[in-house]
Amino acid sequence: MKIDKIEGGVTAAAGFRASGIHCGLRRNKSKRDLALIAADVRCTAAGLFTTNRVFAAPVGLCRSHLEDGYAQAIICNSGNANTCTADGYEKANLTAAALASALGIAENDVLVASTGVIGVPLPVEPIIAGIPQLVNELDTGFISGENAAIAIMTTDTKKKEYAVSYEFGGHTIVIGGICKGSGMISPNMATMLGFLTTDAAVTPGLLKPALKAAADVSYNMVSVDRDTSTNDSLILLASGMSGAPLIESADDPAYKAFCEALTTLCTIMAKAIAADGEGASKLLECTITGCADYETARVLAKSVINSPLVKTAMFGADANWGRILCALGYAGVEFDPHKVDVTFRSSAGSVKVCEQGMSCPFDEDAAKSVLVKNYIIIDIDLSSGEHSATAWGCDLSYEYVRINGDYRS
Amino acid sequence: MKIDKIEGGVTAAAGFRASGIHCGLRRNKSKRDLALIAADVRCTAAGLFTTNRVFAAPVGLCRSHLEDGYAQAIICNSGNANTCTADGYEKANLTAAALASALGIAENDVLVASTGVIGVPLPVEPIIAGIPQLVNELDTGFISGENAAIAIMTTDTKKKEYAVSYEFGGHTIVIGGICKGSGMISPNMATMLGFLTTDAAVTPGLLKPALKAAADVSYNMVSVDRDTSTNDSLILLASGMSGAPLIESADDPAYKAFCEALTTLCTIMAKAIAADGEGASKLLECTITGCADYETARVLAKSVINSPLVKTAMFGADANWGRILCALGYAGVEFDPHKVDVTFRSSAGSVKVCEQGMSCPFDEDAAKSVLVKNYIIIDIDLSSGEHSATAWGCDLSYEYVRINGDYRS
Repeated sequence: MKIDKIEGGVTAAAGFRASGIHCGLRRNKSKRDLALIAADVRCTAAGLFTTNRVFAAPVGLCRSHLEDGYAQAIICNSGNANTCTADGYEKANLTAAALASALGIAENDVLVASTGVIGVPLPVEPIIAGIPQLVNELDTGFISGENAAIAIMTTDTKKKEYAVSYEFGGHTIVIGGICKGSGMISPNMATMLGFLTTDAAVTPGLLKPALKAAADVSYNMVSVDRDTSTNDSLILLASGMSGAPLIESADDPAYKAFCEALTTLCTIMAKAIAADGEGASKLLECTITGCADYETARVLAKSVINSPLVKTAMFGADANWGRILCALGYAGVEFDPHKVDVTFRSSAGSVKVCEQGMSCPFDEDAAKSVLVKNYIIIDIDLSSGEHSATAWGCDLSYEYVRINGDYRS
Repeated sequence: MKIDKIEGGVTAAAGFRASGIHCGLRRNKSKRDLALIAADVRCTAAGLFTTNRVFAAPVGLCRSHLEDGYAQAIICNSGNANTCTADGYEKANLTAAALASALGIAENDVLVASTGVIGVPLPVEPIIAGIPQLVNELDTGFISGENAAIAIMTTDTKKKEYAVSYEFGGHTIVIGGICKGSGMISPNMATMLGFLTTDAAVTPGLLKPALKAAADVSYNMVSVDRDTSTNDSLILLASGMSGAPLIESADDPAYKAFCEALTTLCTIMAKAIAADGEGASKLLECTITGCADYETARVLAKSVINSPLVKTAMFGADANWGRILCALGYAGVEFDPHKVDVTFRSSAGSVKVCEQGMSCPFDEDAAKSVLVKNYIIIDIDLSSGEHSATAWGCDLSYEYVRINGDYRS
């Protein structure tokens, strides 16, 4: 099925407006810090949240509000995570109530997200005071969508908004979204947030599994520093305003098409997050193929992408396959080390560096020219089955240490 | 029981000689690269090895030779890990056979270890050729023991040899050892190796559990970069030449005393390894107390010590307790985030930064003065039970990235 990447982000699909303003949480007046995504209609909705046992008050609120499978608005602030404080829920609820009132929708249909410093009580007054302007500036246009994308940023070096469209049964369906963050800086926590909107019509019972399946091969396969934040949230709203018939059966070919497009979008967004990891100079992609089972492939791919020694080797453009074998070996899953082939790939070409678990002759200069590129693929073939998995991450650089470790001024 | 730290290392206990020479594996002629520890008698012996599925040929040899619970010599080379090559076992066996012949002992009583680059076939000829000199230079003195400690080094910045002694039942028992490595550099792998000798008399059936128990609270609680190498080995030989009666029952108070001293020694050595982690400027110690169960405490302590964000914060002397809570939360074990107290301690004093899972007021200057020291203790009290665990690691610095990532010249 042909899936097109199109302009825009969270307002690309029919039925959604967005805005992003500076309400006063960030000291820098030119930094937007409050975003709103509002649907014209009540949407079916699904959300996936952090598995960290320490989770933000807004995450608790979202889980609760999403129990019925419907939502109509998402409000997100940057600058404060509203986590590990005494009044977190009180303030998240206050925010939801104020927004619901301003939009004329049910409080239970409002979702709240926050990203920023942990442990500092959230200044909720600027948020409440900013709601009228936030609602006033709601718009379907590119600029409003972009403002929302910017307002959720913390340590990101660029805004992240993407959209895709596809044709099915004579209808055009659009899925778009904004996302932010992957590593964490001191003192702010750059949580992973993703807010997706679509004009497809999908029942709640099918929306959640679609989101989970897409996340499992994208967001959940990204790691910058293994630190799963307390605020990670991925939310999808479906307005149905494409006009396409309601997808209410998992056997419906329209569902398969929707899932494929959603996965495509989530993969684009996940890679953008990995590439913008703190201090990253390279996007790393590790693909395991020929694996005996799928879960094993996932664990192995992530183990390689998470290894500080692989990450630093990639920073140094060093074709060090020993570290890759080592990372496979301590992953805690079964595989045959004597069947492992490792190849490094990039736009400059490819070099096989390990065959059947042992070194094979390779041209160091050729390897270096492959590895100096800023998008490196580590292909690992286990020759032991039919299953594959891909994980994304980034190199580990001086900049990561500087961002995360340098003396606070 | 009073346990004294004494001079020396692997030759401190009665019945052991050592040597360390340059046989030609390292290019630098002044770098010793071949070590030997030889006992006057056949010893009871125990070994613990890497859990990495990809393991070195010498590790396979050791596991096999230790099945009967006895050994008499350990030969170890640096400069090549003898891993992931086609002829690894052939060469390890050749080495064992040559040494057995030179010492007049059984080949099955020879243990072999290697540390260095992976994937390059081991040049075994210099090793075989060096055996006569290695055996000739065997001595009980400090200098010979030191030579062995130096010969096993790769990325270590200092040799690591330690010994303890204690009195029991009118006898003096000594346990000593040498160890090396924790992080890995390109292209060599600085495996964790520990070779311990004692003049206690302990049956094989009791020696292994004693070593495991000691390792479980020491070596196995050290992490520099989570990368468990392919060559990790911890070996203990017991000569019985202290004259003390044979320990053959777990209920024997002499066993309890032995285990306590062994654990003390292993802890000293494990901390030395953590403190010398690549690029480390600080030894970090994380202690979990008040935990509902022991395994949980161990997992939590290691999660904190492994977190790149905690490590970089410590590098930057940043009292960032949010990252510590985050690392606890993603460890995958149960605990109550609302009962967590976090205190930073060092020779400069202590500062509590988190109480009951939320921020508590603290003096930033006082915290900074605590955290600029080079030995930091992170005390975490969960107020939920009686169990504790301690893990050790080090900060993550620019130097780690430089050592592991800089372009190969």
